[in-house]
Amino acid sequence: MKITDVTVQTFRYTSSEGRDAEGHGHPADPHDATQTIMTVTADNGAQGHVFGANPQHVAALVKPHLVGEDPFYREKIWHQLYTYQRGNTGVLTDHLLGLVDMALWDLAGQHFKTPIHKLLGATRDKVPAYGSTMCGDELPNGLSTPEEYGRFAEWLVKRGYKAIKLHTWMPPIKWAPDARMDVRACAAVREAVGPDIELMIDCYHHYSRSEAYYIGKELEKLDYKWIEEPMDEYSVSSYVWLAEQLEIPVIGPEYHAGKMQSRAEWIVRGACDITRGGVTDNGGISPLMKIVHLAEAFNMAMEVHGGGPGNLHVLCAMSIPGQYYERGLLHPFIDWEKPKPWLKTIDDPMDEDGFVHISQKPGLGQDIDFDYIKANLVK
Amino acid sequence: MKITDVTVQTFRYTSSEGRDAEGHGHPADPHDATQTIMTVTADNGAQGHVFGANPQHVAALVKPHLVGEDPFYREKIWHQLYTYQRGNTGVLTDHLLGLVDMALWDLAGQHFKTPIHKLLGATRDKVPAYGSTMCGDELPNGLSTPEEYGRFAEWLVKRGYKAIKLHTWMPPIKWAPDARMDVRACAAVREAVGPDIELMIDCYHHYSRSEAYYIGKELEKLDYKWIEEPMDEYSVSSYVWLAEQLEIPVIGPEYHAGKMQSRAEWIVRGACDITRGGVTDNGGISPLMKIVHLAEAFNMAMEVHGGGPGNLHVLCAMSIPGQYYERGLLHPFIDWEKPKPWLKTIDDPMDEDGFVHISQKPGLGQDIDFDYIKANLVK
Repeated sequence: MKITDVTVQTFRYTSSEGRDAEGHGHPADPHDATQTIMTVTADNGAQGHVFGANPQHVAALVKPHLVGEDPFYREKIWHQLYTYQRGNTGVLTDHLLGLVDMALWDLAGQHFKTPIHKLLGATRDKVPAYGSTMCGDELPNGLSTPEEYGRFAEWLVKRGYKAIKLHTWMPPIKWAPDARMDVRACAAVREAVGPDIELMIDCYHHYSRSEAYYIGKELEKLDYKWIEEPMDEYSVSSYVWLAEQLEIPVIGPEYHAGKMQSRAEWIVRGACDITRGGVTDNGGISPLMKIVHLAEAFNMAMEVHGGGPGNLHVLCAMSIPGQYYERGLLHPFIDWEKPKPWLKTIDDPMDEDGFVHISQKPGLGQDIDFDYIKANLVK
Repeated sequence: MKITDVTVQTFRYTSSEGRDAEGHGHPADPHDATQTIMTVTADNGAQGHVFGANPQHVAALVKPHLVGEDPFYREKIWHQLYTYQRGNTGVLTDHLLGLVDMALWDLAGQHFKTPIHKLLGATRDKVPAYGSTMCGDELPNGLSTPEEYGRFAEWLVKRGYKAIKLHTWMPPIKWAPDARMDVRACAAVREAVGPDIELMIDCYHHYSRSEAYYIGKELEKLDYKWIEEPMDEYSVSSYVWLAEQLEIPVIGPEYHAGKMQSRAEWIVRGACDITRGGVTDNGGISPLMKIVHLAEAFNMAMEVHGGGPGNLHVLCAMSIPGQYYERGLLHPFIDWEKPKPWLKTIDDPMDEDGFVHISQKPGLGQDIDFDYIKANLVK
């Protein structure tokens, strides 16, 4: 079996989300946008699909490495791309490696008519979710005050969530970051949801040691479950220091480059209480499973960063069960239950008890609307 | 899909190998022996097979955990057995866990009509082998003198091996262990094969620090590739000390309990230069891949211990390529190219250049002679 083609098609849709100057997503007025679908095709007709790859980067650096290879030689292909990364860091990112790896896993699952978590060796079919908010904003009735976070949290609990994570205010909001405002939002949410909901914070990522310490100590009083990357992740010594100072678990790293290698260093340094990785942070399902296995070898908790089907399949194949699926990012103005225009159904349906159920469809299990994509192709 | 039955059948064959009082294999006069085949069957008829499980132990502890489970939930099943191990260490060994895990992988491969290394995400289809000798003996023209090791090594090189590992003399041979004799055998082999063949030693496992140091220093002069577990593996501090003292790489652990967890501790302690694991030492293909991933995260070489199809599939799915497949144990009196009576062909065919080729048959890829087994069943 050989890969015969790797294509990326671009299609139009109407988006209701925008990005601020620092790259954080927020609700936005409906506007034209584009999305891409990458398709890896094998000589027997089997295909794998994944969304979000850059067409030029795939054509320049991915396709030449894939065509002619057996699609089941994922480790061989991944390792080839990995060694080519060094000279092509701006293009052949871990994000793109992750998309390629997921497309190959999807192809295998489509070929075998089996969802990926069962190919990996499954552990479960549903995972508790935490509602993960968008970053704070300045939209009235959005997430612009501690009280609005509290009201939204109340709604999330009614929807079924048993855990909530706040992303608080960050630049380019002029007055952000503000550690005291972060704590006020956390307090408002704790007051709104009561003692039985698990709460976490993912705040500004460039606080000083003393600011991070202040937030951590306050969140201990509010019985928060974890504090996530409040400082520059490359200052590993800062994390060693913070993890020693705080009772509340420190979780990370997330965007620190270096895949499983950097996670190994965080673990041996004692820089975190819970380690972390995600399919698009670390180069795909294959390396994320390596991080899971690394964490298991050190009996260290590991929580998966970000949502989407790739992360969900990993969560359903972990022997050391990641406690939560990250659902969102959520906002009062956004209907998360509504599928993206290119999907017929959402990737992460959640029941009333707060469990996200994995798709039993083959591969990544996405319910792709190929007719929509075809009708909206950019020529 | 559900597991409906787990059976172990015992059958007779004629063996030409025996075990000494310490459990080491040696050539023996043909004699009656028994072997077992474990079969895991799913409700759709898919089956996985593996040889060597104890019928009573499977009936008592394995079958009750497997029947009713989905055979693709390997991680769930493995984790259940793992937690039950603590109270059942004498029965639910890592060896038995390994056989169960391999049977489940075989079942998956049979179901998908695909060899396991491709389900794992393959890297290659052939692996260089080292010829791994039996332990020394007192059989004339066998492995009873350094000169006989030298002659056998010459023959192995003619057969195609590019690397050879000596297992030297161990108790119950009365005069063993003897560090000087080990070095003499190693010298005789180096002299017989010349400078271009890679050589390793796996000697007595309870030498003192000074004996291990002596052997290591002598093997540095003989340009040996590694020294394998020359001391009690639970004295991790001894290995930290030895790895610091010697230039020649120290490889281990092998039989140290604790699966990927103990390998993690060896790595962070600096107790080895090359880490090690095998499917029946560590509880199967699944945990062995975790050790591979752990080693990869620390950029540490990892060599697979022992032969057989499970280890070969792991070797063909490693991104950090284990350098060698361990072929044997070999002896001048034993024809390794002849299949076991219950196999139609051998598991590890080797070409003239010393490469073992993996089977492209489904699952473990073994060429089982079911007619032979049926005809020789023990009622």
